[in-house]
Amino acid sequence: MNAFKQIPVVPARADDAIRALIANRRPGYSLDADFYLSPAVFDLDMEEIFGRHWIFVAVEPDIPEPGDYITVDVGRQPVVILRDDDDQLRAFHNVCRHRGSRLCSQAQGSVGNLVCPYHQWTYRLNGNLAYAEHMGEDFDKSQHSLKPVRIESLSGLIFICLDPDAPEDFQAFREQVEPYLRPHRIRDCKVAAQVDIVEDCNWKLTMENNRECYHCAANHPELTVSVFEFGFGYQPSPANARQLEHFAQISAQRCLEWEAAGLPSEERDALDDRVTGYRVRRLPLDLSGESQTLDGNAASRKLLGDLARPDLGGLSLWTQPNGWFHFMSDHIVAFSVLPLGPEKTLVRTRWLVHKDAEEHRDYDIDHLTAVWRATNAQDRTLVELSQQGVRSAAYQPGPYSPHTEALVEKFCNWYIGRLSARYLD
Amino acid sequence: MNAFKQIPVVPARADDAIRALIANRRPGYSLDADFYLSPAVFDLDMEEIFGRHWIFVAVEPDIPEPGDYITVDVGRQPVVILRDDDDQLRAFHNVCRHRGSRLCSQAQGSVGNLVCPYHQWTYRLNGNLAYAEHMGEDFDKSQHSLKPVRIESLSGLIFICLDPDAPEDFQAFREQVEPYLRPHRIRDCKVAAQVDIVEDCNWKLTMENNRECYHCAANHPELTVSVFEFGFGYQPSPANARQLEHFAQISAQRCLEWEAAGLPSEERDALDDRVTGYRVRRLPLDLSGESQTLDGNAASRKLLGDLARPDLGGLSLWTQPNGWFHFMSDHIVAFSVLPLGPEKTLVRTRWLVHKDAEEHRDYDIDHLTAVWRATNAQDRTLVELSQQGVRSAAYQPGPYSPHTEALVEKFCNWYIGRLSARYLD
Amino acid sequence: MNAFKQIPVVPARADDAIRALIANRRPGYSLDADFYLSPAVFDLDMEEIFGRHWIFVAVEPDIPEPGDYITVDVGRQPVVILRDDDDQLRAFHNVCRHRGSRLCSQAQGSVGNLVCPYHQWTYRLNGNLAYAEHMGEDFDKSQHSLKPVRIESLSGLIFICLDPDAPEDFQAFREQVEPYLRPHRIRDCKVAAQVDIVEDCNWKLTMENNRECYHCAANHPELTVSVFEFGFGYQPSPANARQLEHFAQISAQRCLEWEAAGLPSEERDALDDRVTGYRVRRLPLDLSGESQTLDGNAASRKLLGDLARPDLGGLSLWTQPNGWFHFMSDHIVAFSVLPLGPEKTLVRTRWLVHKDAEEHRDYDIDHLTAVWRATNAQDRTLVELSQQGVRSAAYQPGPYSPHTEALVEKFCNWYIGRLSARYLD
Repeated sequence: MNAFKQIPVVPARADDAIRALIANRRPGYSLDADFYLSPAVFDLDMEEIFGRHWIFVAVEPDIPEPGDYITVDVGRQPVVILRDDDDQLRAFHNVCRHRGSRLCSQAQGSVGNLVCPYHQWTYRLNGNLAYAEHMGEDFDKSQHSLKPVRIESLSGLIFICLDPDAPEDFQAFREQVEPYLRPHRIRDCKVAAQVDIVEDCNWKLTMENNRECYHCAANHPELTVSVFEFGFGYQPSPANARQLEHFAQISAQRCLEWEAAGLPSEERDALDDRVTGYRVRRLPLDLSGESQTLDGNAASRKLLGDLARPDLGGLSLWTQPNGWFHFMSDHIVAFSVLPLGPEKTLVRTRWLVHKDAEEHRDYDIDHLTAVWRATNAQDRTLVELSQQGVRSAAYQPGPYSPHTEALVEKFCNWYIGRLSARYLD
Repeated sequence: MNAFKQIPVVPARADDAIRALIANRRPGYSLDADFYLSPAVFDLDMEEIFGRHWIFVAVEPDIPEPGDYITVDVGRQPVVILRDDDDQLRAFHNVCRHRGSRLCSQAQGSVGNLVCPYHQWTYRLNGNLAYAEHMGEDFDKSQHSLKPVRIESLSGLIFICLDPDAPEDFQAFREQVEPYLRPHRIRDCKVAAQVDIVEDCNWKLTMENNRECYHCAANHPELTVSVFEFGFGYQPSPANARQLEHFAQISAQRCLEWEAAGLPSEERDALDDRVTGYRVRRLPLDLSGESQTLDGNAASRKLLGDLARPDLGGLSLWTQPNGWFHFMSDHIVAFSVLPLGPEKTLVRTRWLVHKDAEEHRDYDIDHLTAVWRATNAQDRTLVELSQQGVRSAAYQPGPYSPHTEALVEKFCNWYIGRLSARYLD
Repeated sequence: MNAFKQIPVVPARADDAIRALIANRRPGYSLDADFYLSPAVFDLDMEEIFGRHWIFVAVEPDIPEPGDYITVDVGRQPVVILRDDDDQLRAFHNVCRHRGSRLCSQAQGSVGNLVCPYHQWTYRLNGNLAYAEHMGEDFDKSQHSLKPVRIESLSGLIFICLDPDAPEDFQAFREQVEPYLRPHRIRDCKVAAQVDIVEDCNWKLTMENNRECYHCAANHPELTVSVFEFGFGYQPSPANARQLEHFAQISAQRCLEWEAAGLPSEERDALDDRVTGYRVRRLPLDLSGESQTLDGNAASRKLLGDLARPDLGGLSLWTQPNGWFHFMSDHIVAFSVLPLGPEKTLVRTRWLVHKDAEEHRDYDIDHLTAVWRATNAQDRTLVELSQQGVRSAAYQPGPYSPHTEALVEKFCNWYIGRLSARYLD
């Protein structure tokens, strides 16, 4: 009998094909379609990019108390992230060492120990197996601890790395970025809202979309109430010369004021020249200049940390490969991109406010989240249209704008660079 | 880490397996199961059959005015079909030349230019890029026109070919078939109704089902009110000899009458002996002999073109690989088959009436569409049962009836012939 | 054009990879993740395990009368099982010999002949083609009979084997097991209820779950009302020594009583040392000891066969690779596991009562089915958590309990043994 045999789709060796794809990338142009479609490239992305780099997955306010945990799936790797009894952050593969059952099945919760639902194997919060019935006299519990996952907190932003040999430049990243974040005191925030959307596209199209505002003017009416598209690149012309110059002057002036007030604001860009790539910059906002809201004013009356004035513009942080963040005086928006398949991606958005802010009194959830709920929905439509288009045989990599898509290019540089370091060197 | 690696399903070389499949086809028998199941064969079908032949996709009444467009996906190739400002039909790959976004996202519409929703790249209706912001001084718009798709209209039936080297025998096809179609004046019709159904089967099972009426008597009570199954082959026997002879006499007599009245009606069969295969024939209908309706009478009071009498039977046109059509005096039914996957197929049915016919006064949509809505639903059940059966290891190609399945055999001849020309010669 | 080509996921040869997987199995430990995830292993399972062994699929009360049939899909093989005019059980591939249509499309029914819905090819209940219109003078009906499937009834439990060279030890299996089953007279039962559930896991996780009660105490409150977990293995300890001894004594005593009353009850275990593996044993139940119900009492007032007293505990039968059964004095529960995909499995549960028992008077369906509906739902959650966990790169085979998971180990022994016999010898 031969019922389930199928003719294979392609005979060639995957490694050669992938090496050729990587080597053939044309700088200044969008990536070849296989990068957005191929299951083999997706597997590579999960192994090399999401399996070996620092991935943004959570914030400390998700797990404020000892015993609090959240679970996250990085590709097919279920992970549990928790705060142990000594207030230390820990991450483990969320898999029982007995027969492999998922250990914590809820999205989040609070526990004294981690008990497997299947046969009640019980682990302490440090991962040690404390109890396993029926396993006989010779069973060695010490050989069956949970497998740890590397974890770091950047002023309260939680990054994990599935590779025990995690990139060592996280410390440098921390030293350069924490001064920017510290005044917003993430650890003193609470998660006011979290929204997940699933986009029918490859995760890199989601990231590329995030790295330019070329599409903003025509697609994001709510966002562009407060955000100046000039801040993200613009082709100069006689018609816009005065506007551009004005924006540059104001930005420089505000930057000096903010820095003088102890708020690091100047651009630092390390998006494509290190393993743990990032970019950070504080930019003015329009109208009252306070927040990314429908009226430009702060959405929460309780300002973050010790911040005294609301008109601090927006401090933005972009991290490779999967995060971006906007820090305002009153609230923070944090985005985490998690691939679900070659053509399916989860975008998880968290809105943080001061932990002492009270809903209805200090902030309103609908108002707080309105701009980015709308913007995310618009971006979803755009990236899904892109995914549909790159499936066409007629698609060929097109040119990036030198004025408005430089950060998209840097994302591709970083991505191709990471794969090249692994496969071409 | 090794999380996403999987053991491959089959090691052998695809090309050899496919060559063997093609070479081993047994004439007079249904195809091997792999032709209906294999993703590799599906890819081949999309590349060689749907990628290199004239595919029926639309009718001119879909886009009567300049600026009107419709979109269609041929496999994973999104295409936009439009009427330009000079009233000329054009087709383009529906993919922006910038970052590959699908250009027109709606099923149909009317536009002055084609504007990409992502970054507003703007194309004229002739495909030329007219406008692209931020692309810098050195950007050459002339290098970024939309990619054209070959397009032809057969008296108003729109065929496209994705291959720039399209088969050259379309002209011969046109010369032989247009005299049959012309009296029904498709361009003076409107689309009264369009219905899409998705069948869980390979597209070839949909086509094979269309190419015989062996299954009609037991499955299509609505269709056989007006359609004589004798018209599609019958095994002679003493019991049916008189009926068969009677039908042959009437058919011949009506054919002479119609031809004398300027309506070409005689059978022309080129289903399996040319690249752009077709068959055309006008046959009598039962009862009043007017139309494929539940009572045999015309469904629209406004006859097509200059036709003066309603009892013109049914002129049927079959085209390889994906169309069939019934032209009556009062309305036309046009079927387009579009593969969606190895086991998923779209069947799009359009009903056309005279453009001046008014709903409720001259025709009723439910009445007009009743026969083929019922017949399509019945055929869907049958082809899905076939798909389920060919998945079985017990399936082996079975014999075609020499009397009733000759046109199924011709479909297979054409299909295998086209693949052989490419792979075995 | 190159639209549908994709980079292959893995280049290596499947056969070598599968041989290595089989050879590397570590006794006493759960299986490698590929056994639960790989499409190639799934195909192998369907071909070698479900394609060559005796599979439990139905019970005779499903088809009590001549002409009664049921259909079942074993993987992608549709099969029809029927009782012919001579009261003989028969099974055929449920595929017409003409163009391969599924013959019987309903789950069950009653017919005089098997008529293909497509072109009315008509087969007798013995599989012979009786009638096929339009096939011409030369057509040989005798060459187009339905393809038979091997079938056996074990006291009314119907097993089929898709391989004509079915394992010959069914006869030995019958001789050893039928004495246990006979008193419950399955053929004099009726199917009071049948419930299908689809589990998102590999079929082997479903089977492994069935082969231990280590998970019962914490997960099955309804089942453990009547079922002693001591009956399925327990690690001895000073704390439970008296309980274990007490249970052993009672079990031995009841076994003697039952055997004396003509009811074979002693354990027979041939789970991993023959091709058609099984285990059978009658065990006491708690409370009144009558049935696996929420109160321990018989659920049907009409006892099975000639059984005179209700407190006969539970006779359990386990069969490799896909069945298990509990026979009580008043009702029988029969489970059939049918793989649907690498990570999707159908569990079909039938509840049988005496054919003369009347609903509402003698039994209530909700009460009869309550324990196993609840237990199945709980097991479904557990096996799906297992499937999620084994997808993790962090999963590695874990140790089985020597006290409570010996039958899981025997299931793996049997499974690996069957593949080894085929691939490693």
